[in-house]
Amino acid sequence: MKFRTVRGMRDFLPKKAEKMRYIEEYSREIAKLYGYQEIITPLVESYELLAAKSGEEIRKRMYAFKDLGGRKVGLRPEFTASIARLVAGRMKNAPKPLRLFCLGSLYRYDEPQYGRFREFWQANYELMGSEEAEADAEILTLTDQLMQRLGLRNYHLKIGHVGILRGILDQEEVEEESQNRIMQLLDKKEWEEAFQVIGESEISERCTKTLKNVFETRGKNPEQVLGRAKEEVQDYENSVAAVENLSEILELVANSGVELEMVIEAGFARGLEYYTGLIFELFVPELDIALGGGGRYDRLIELFGGEPTPAVGVAQGIDRLSLAMKKQEVSLRMGGREKVIVIPIGEELKGKAMEVALMLREARIPAEVEVMGRTVSRALEDANRREATHTVLVGPEELTENKVVLRDMQKREQKAIQIEDLLKEIEQSRN
Amino acid sequence: MKFRTVRGMRDFLPKKAEKMRYIEEYSREIAKLYGYQEIITPLVESYELLAAKSGEEIRKRMYAFKDLGGRKVGLRPEFTASIARLVAGRMKNAPKPLRLFCLGSLYRYDEPQYGRFREFWQANYELMGSEEAEADAEILTLTDQLMQRLGLRNYHLKIGHVGILRGILDQEEVEEESQNRIMQLLDKKEWEEAFQVIGESEISERCTKTLKNVFETRGKNPEQVLGRAKEEVQDYENSVAAVENLSEILELVANSGVELEMVIEAGFARGLEYYTGLIFELFVPELDIALGGGGRYDRLIELFGGEPTPAVGVAQGIDRLSLAMKKQEVSLRMGGREKVIVIPIGEELKGKAMEVALMLREARIPAEVEVMGRTVSRALEDANRREATHTVLVGPEELTENKVVLRDMQKREQKAIQIEDLLKEIEQSRN
Repeated sequence: MKFRTVRGMRDFLPKKAEKMRYIEEYSREIAKLYGYQEIITPLVESYELLAAKSGEEIRKRMYAFKDLGGRKVGLRPEFTASIARLVAGRMKNAPKPLRLFCLGSLYRYDEPQYGRFREFWQANYELMGSEEAEADAEILTLTDQLMQRLGLRNYHLKIGHVGILRGILDQEEVEEESQNRIMQLLDKKEWEEAFQVIGESEISERCTKTLKNVFETRGKNPEQVLGRAKEEVQDYENSVAAVENLSEILELVANSGVELEMVIEAGFARGLEYYTGLIFELFVPELDIALGGGGRYDRLIELFGGEPTPAVGVAQGIDRLSLAMKKQEVSLRMGGREKVIVIPIGEELKGKAMEVALMLREARIPAEVEVMGRTVSRALEDANRREATHTVLVGPEELTENKVVLRDMQKREQKAIQIEDLLKEIEQSRN
Repeated sequence: MKFRTVRGMRDFLPKKAEKMRYIEEYSREIAKLYGYQEIITPLVESYELLAAKSGEEIRKRMYAFKDLGGRKVGLRPEFTASIARLVAGRMKNAPKPLRLFCLGSLYRYDEPQYGRFREFWQANYELMGSEEAEADAEILTLTDQLMQRLGLRNYHLKIGHVGILRGILDQEEVEEESQNRIMQLLDKKEWEEAFQVIGESEISERCTKTLKNVFETRGKNPEQVLGRAKEEVQDYENSVAAVENLSEILELVANSGVELEMVIEAGFARGLEYYTGLIFELFVPELDIALGGGGRYDRLIELFGGEPTPAVGVAQGIDRLSLAMKKQEVSLRMGGREKVIVIPIGEELKGKAMEVALMLREARIPAEVEVMGRTVSRALEDANRREATHTVLVGPEELTENKVVLRDMQKREQKAIQIEDLLKEIEQSRN
């Protein structure tokens, strides 16, 4: 009988698991420093909720099933629906701005490929209640801060504003459903198909030309790109407003002293239907998949039955950040790495060895007790293989003087010392 | 359109979520101090794996379904199967002892009731490879340490050894299937039904009498209870060995200096089929549900296709620990609780306000920026309601001298200070 993980699912063995938890910890610290309060929502939600506004792409790849009570449920493919449910419901009276953080695993039945799995982890930050540009700017600087603290380099943001394209398509009276379809195709870079759908609507020739020009308007310098974009869309009032909004956001980021590498794309679209303003994705040069992304979604809470609530947020992919750290060979910053193994000499001293280990742990020094009933020499061999920094031998002779033998595994030195001096000795040998 | 959580599923709003994460953090710290390495296993596993050895009770309450590829899968109802899969497979060559930790959510379609939900969280510690009593003792002291560090009081362990009952039933040649059924019924305290199943097997009168006496053998003093138990089961060799094993474990715990409140029950049974030795559950007087439990399961890894691997482990219920902390009014030990809100005076200083906030966060002081475009007085009112400890007003006049106005919200005092003195001032006002 041999069992395996289900396709697209993974085990994280100790080293990888440690890295995941490390990134989680940094994500949570950033949340605390920016005042985002953590909430925990269930992994299993009603299908109706999850399907309500997620967009077809996600809907058709959902893990959906009936529970034993016959309810149609699904595993969350993203956090947004759960957060919207809360903000429209139990948290509807929470004072604004409401800054929320959530972290956990998500599920999508995608074709597994490099950096993409059916179970993946995200850290999500949502700022609810403000329609001001400084809210958008906060989400961008927060993203920058997380990357910096993790020690990642050369990252850049791809930035756009859905209002630029929507402004054009709205004014040309393209129906919302077609617009959503167009945005999805553009997100997947299926230009031809997108223009085919655009062609099906009765739009002006001027519009087609404008759209083509917009798609070509991209670059690293916000002022230049947005200046050009503004000219291109000058006949479309809402598109002009979108460009101005994006300018204001990026100016605030610059004024706050954050230097953000970015590529601005006037024709940038993201697949999710609910974005209404700023959109962005996060990249490192070593990977061609986004590490995270986000944007503004001002109408979503309303669509879930809540008060109109402007909102902007970002989701960071924890697995992908981990992959980026691997590619850039970023090492984890960990505290002191003592590891002590306590070995009893003789049956009678097993309890005493446990007591010594408890004392070490009390002082926050990781300590393992030999539990295999091995000889001292075999236990020492094993301690060596496990890269213990110290071993402590608890033997009957030394114990009559209240002593144990402390062995420094790196220096290969050992001496008998009073039990009460053990902590001091181990701490000193650290240097 | 109003959405709700699915029955048995819960949202944790910020206060409760913080407590869950706090308990997680302590669980993980204990793991590190004891040398348990964390692994992360998938939430979705093959049904075949999950159903293999879980016992009927769990099997019939599993969230099982077919994924989009037609695979029969389930949401894990416990960690054990996933860990056994790994230890029998990818980790089969890891040196022993192998200490593993995992933490996450589990799913069982139980009837929701006080302290019992369909989605719940556990911290799991497994010590693989040792059949020695000190391994069992380690799991018990680790459980004690977690309770102590969380600040819980008056807890006790209910302790037994499945070998006592199994030894009797084996010698009486009761078939394993009936034995499992009996153990389950005993676990649910359905005595009559259990004795009915016992009666269906052809067992000696002596046996029935012994069983009845065993069930009455319980108490707080290990020596007394186990002495009595040994007499009761004297005709059953393996039961005697089980009692001796339990004595040895409890003696080790005592010798290590840990004083553990306990009730020893010679007739204690737990529902899961895979236990082979020590079993225990953890209680506080305020709740009649177990906060955690565990035991020894020496044959499980083999049943999952691995090498014979003795093992002992414990699972702590994070939600239930949280509930116990609430009942005992244990407060969370948190670090300094500054909360600064930075308020720009005028449109032009929004970027500068963001910069000041970034500086505070760099020094690990939580800082929020006013993003609602409110007047200063309304922003101050809001800061008060949010229990900010300080506000920083970034205004054009002070800024000409490179100053900002720092307001201590508790003392209701404010003064203009140099930006570079801001950190020092906030830290000083802490005392």
